[in-house]
Amino acid sequence: VSEEAVDATGVAIARALDFAVELDKLKAVLRRTRPVGLDRQENSAEHSWQLAVVAMTLAAHAAETVDVGRVLEMLLVHDIPEIDCGDHFVYSRDPAATARVEAAAAKRLFGLLPEEIGARLHARWHEFEEQRTPEARFAHAIDRMLPILQNLRGGAYSWREHGITADQVKAINGAAIERALPAVWRVLEPKIDALFASGAMDPDASAGGTR
Amino acid sequence: VSEEAVDATGVAIARALDFAVELDKLKAVLRRTRPVGLDRQENSAEHSWQLAVVAMTLAAHAAETVDVGRVLEMLLVHDIPEIDCGDHFVYSRDPAATARVEAAAAKRLFGLLPEEIGARLHARWHEFEEQRTPEARFAHAIDRMLPILQNLRGGAYSWREHGITADQVKAINGAAIERALPAVWRVLEPKIDALFASGAMDPDASAGGTR
Repeated sequence: VSEEAVDATGVAIARALDFAVELDKLKAVLRRTRPVGLDRQENSAEHSWQLAVVAMTLAAHAAETVDVGRVLEMLLVHDIPEIDCGDHFVYSRDPAATARVEAAAAKRLFGLLPEEIGARLHARWHEFEEQRTPEARFAHAIDRMLPILQNLRGGAYSWREHGITADQVKAINGAAIERALPAVWRVLEPKIDALFASGAMDPDASAGGTR
Repeated sequence: VSEEAVDATGVAIARALDFAVELDKLKAVLRRTRPVGLDRQENSAEHSWQLAVVAMTLAAHAAETVDVGRVLEMLLVHDIPEIDCGDHFVYSRDPAATARVEAAAAKRLFGLLPEEIGARLHARWHEFEEQRTPEARFAHAIDRMLPILQNLRGGAYSWREHGITADQVKAINGAAIERALPAVWRVLEPKIDALFASGAMDPDASAGGTR
């Protein structure tokens, strides 16, 4: 191996290590949701991990056949731009404005990496955003499904905190989950209805959670 | 689709969703390391996410060709048994005892899933532990490398806290990183030496961190 090759490798590795350290910042980006059983909001790093594992466990139920490796790559990188612009709550964000600031953040962050691998991760992020492949639609459904599950099992913390209604939950998430994971939606939808119908979500009811 | 098939699917999905909720517990398992820039220990869920992303960025530098999807699956599941038995600090654990309790935990946790997918995740966990494939060795090197990087860039928090020496850092991690990611070890080893040689790690020196 020539000295120049070693130097180029060293430079590429230094950039990858700088990016690795930058990733620590996603552990400080808080989402609205709480992990079930924990008395704190979850961060986007641990959320991304959970999505990826859950995607592995539900891939067999996807409406379209998906390449699991590609799904994992998408879910692992899809929140990285939040390092620069934070998490935008799905029930209150302005989609166009969010897309603009996240695109700029993605460009900066994936640009920290050596070109080839930076382009690959950037492309995965873009694929997730565009929702044009079976893998992107499946990944998106997982991302929409998990906070619903955490609300259903964890006392509906973020729904209560922000006064979210059953109609909002279903309007924002239903179509995305149903098209990519219809069997999961068949399980979740009646549980959403039951929770809101139970009166547990009335403003004067105490937090409890249902299974 | 017959009613029995719908029922079987519903049961499989219910088990996968129970497992997804169980995963929230890994967000409460604390490691000795702190994320760079944060005033708290990191948890094993966010750590697993970071390992997976970093693996994507360094796969081109692996000593042996690796299937990245397989590496991601391993890194995403490798700490799941800690839900039952916590994180064991690499510098003080009893490897045989740790392996025993983690094997029992893996059996319980992956057993929550429907059989086929549970067996797949369990196999990935086992492959990581066994270190017999290029993917397992590469994943292991990433797992060993990242806390070193966090110490080097973050004031050596866990090394200071536990009185770890340069010799310990190199003895516990050097061979594993060098065999799977030699170019990364060439970058890290001199930085470890320089940090400890600088006097910054002396018991009476204040925490600072180096780049």
